[in-house]
Amino acid sequence: MSSSDNSRRRFIVNAGTASGALLVGACGQSSQPAGAQTDAAASQQSFKWKMATTWPRDLPGAGTGAQRLVDNIRKMSNGRLDITLYGAGELVPAFEVFDSAASRIVEMGHGAAYYWKGKAPASQYYGSVPFGMTATESNAWLYYGGGLELWNEVYEPFGLMAFPGGNTGVQMGGWYNREINSVSDLQGLKIRMPGLGGEVMRRAGATVQNIPGAEIFTALSTGTIDATEWIGPWNDLAFGLYQAARYYYYPGWQEPGSTLECLINREAYLELPEDLQEIVRVACQSINMDMPCEYTARNQQALDTLVNEHGVELRQFPEEVLARLKTISQEVLEELADGDAMSRRVYDSYFGFLAQVRQWTAKSEEVFLQYR
Amino acid sequence: MSSSDNSRRRFIVNAGTASGALLVGACGQSSQPAGAQTDAAASQQSFKWKMATTWPRDLPGAGTGAQRLVDNIRKMSNGRLDITLYGAGELVPAFEVFDSAASRIVEMGHGAAYYWKGKAPASQYYGSVPFGMTATESNAWLYYGGGLELWNEVYEPFGLMAFPGGNTGVQMGGWYNREINSVSDLQGLKIRMPGLGGEVMRRAGATVQNIPGAEIFTALSTGTIDATEWIGPWNDLAFGLYQAARYYYYPGWQEPGSTLECLINREAYLELPEDLQEIVRVACQSINMDMPCEYTARNQQALDTLVNEHGVELRQFPEEVLARLKTISQEVLEELADGDAMSRRVYDSYFGFLAQVRQWTAKSEEVFLQYR
Repeated sequence: MSSSDNSRRRFIVNAGTASGALLVGACGQSSQPAGAQTDAAASQQSFKWKMATTWPRDLPGAGTGAQRLVDNIRKMSNGRLDITLYGAGELVPAFEVFDSAASRIVEMGHGAAYYWKGKAPASQYYGSVPFGMTATESNAWLYYGGGLELWNEVYEPFGLMAFPGGNTGVQMGGWYNREINSVSDLQGLKIRMPGLGGEVMRRAGATVQNIPGAEIFTALSTGTIDATEWIGPWNDLAFGLYQAARYYYYPGWQEPGSTLECLINREAYLELPEDLQEIVRVACQSINMDMPCEYTARNQQALDTLVNEHGVELRQFPEEVLARLKTISQEVLEELADGDAMSRRVYDSYFGFLAQVRQWTAKSEEVFLQYR
Repeated sequence: MSSSDNSRRRFIVNAGTASGALLVGACGQSSQPAGAQTDAAASQQSFKWKMATTWPRDLPGAGTGAQRLVDNIRKMSNGRLDITLYGAGELVPAFEVFDSAASRIVEMGHGAAYYWKGKAPASQYYGSVPFGMTATESNAWLYYGGGLELWNEVYEPFGLMAFPGGNTGVQMGGWYNREINSVSDLQGLKIRMPGLGGEVMRRAGATVQNIPGAEIFTALSTGTIDATEWIGPWNDLAFGLYQAARYYYYPGWQEPGSTLECLINREAYLELPEDLQEIVRVACQSINMDMPCEYTARNQQALDTLVNEHGVELRQFPEEVLARLKTISQEVLEELADGDAMSRRVYDSYFGFLAQVRQWTAKSEEVFLQYR
């Protein structure tokens, strides 16, 4: 897009506010240099955007964090970028957020990249990788290891771009209506698990479904599924999942540091003046810090409530089960990389980074926690 | 301060730009409602601030991150909040940053709170706590566990406020010119270590000094000190510390997740219009995510360089030494809390939060890393 195209589009989109902006620009002419006029004119333009999320509107963390993101953007821009949030199903269904942002029904979406594996297989590396990086490691890769640049290459053919927009930290392994004592207990298990973890479970013998968050409780209650992973204690308590399954397993091998995403229609982003572009970028990075903090602060208290008030049976997956799932995970990740050139590039970048960073994690966080 | 005082001050401070702002406001009168005029006027005000840091200007991470922070603020505000960064000693010495911001020689500082223990003992909990919280846990406490509100109470008597503004993650234990095989090897050791870790070392028999970063290399080279902690491989390589000591110890028990701070003159902050206040707040939270990512991404590569190219001897502290330092740490932390009412309140908040969050860390990050 040329810069004149860009200016024309900006004018059309903001027809409602452009006259005010031009007035200000004209008025400043006598007292300010030309560059400053342009800035002043730009700073008066207003934009109204829509954001659709894959979460129920008030879902603790992911949903409330997405609302906080648009609120922060509104305050920082003094109302010039005003984004209305639509929870899953309010404007478009959860799993149509990607297409809706691509076709500019909404300018922005908030979700998790592994939901779009049918569109771009490589997107799965950007949700969560079984036995992969933690939130700290994964963010280091995204911002300083080339991960985000590649992510934008993955979304570019769809006219989309992405910013990391939250992280759940290490999730729980999920809710099971029977105990998992060995690999054979996974045989025939009907489980809800998205992304690569779901494929691993399928190869371990389970029947895997991908169901949006809002429908999980009903599916588990009615026996449509025998088990589900969702997020962690804080979210799972809010969903009431303890009423539908008895056993709560950890660790969340399938989602050790799930990145949430802000996906943005690229054309809409490029129409913003530079200050608003920067506000969106920095606001996303800020919420990417804010959201995992809230998860970390709330999870243990919620877990205590689940165990002490609701009689949930907390279980650690047996070592044998984790070892088997890890072996299958490596196969699944290798095959995904073999599937297309972009997946291979992301795989190489991700696992090249992990090979290094895990050595640092071992000498820092791991050994520290051992002696704390 | 009343709101009319506030408006008057704002006018005086911005005399250079106010005429332009008023022109714009007057000009908009015919086409915009009254509320919007006020906003438009506010949005044209410009502010020039100074920020002094306790770091050398180009120190990787802390120094370059502070520069990135002010750059982001400038871009987001379209130049309306223009902050000039001064590295340690360029405008004021490193350890006078706190006083300089309190007396408004600068509007903003970037440093680490434990440097101000002589001003406010409770500030030490906000730099780093030996055997305390990791970065993830500590940020959860600050943003969602009441930690930041208390921090602002600690700084309030000085006319200052704080935002978390970076984190180093788990640091290294430091550089030693002799091996530490037992607790007795700490006897008589002349070591540079700030904050509570330094006090722990003193009680373990060392002679402890607090030296600004820029002077460490010389002190270690000339034998003024026998050992020093600084940050981690990425920073320590840049400082050339490997040329002055042979043994490089981990883990950094003394700084398991050191928070860096943006301290701000409260009056200056309150003079900003709401959109600029929000820009500063969100920019600080963003850099608080950005900086630890860069540390995480760079540390292992730097460590490889130190070991493979510079022949550094990497050592883990013996279990016996860590156990002794942990016992002393608990004594030091208890005594600090006994010293004054504010320290007790921060102690109770910090350790109350840690008691919960460590259970969650154990079931999430710790057990996941064990099986990854």
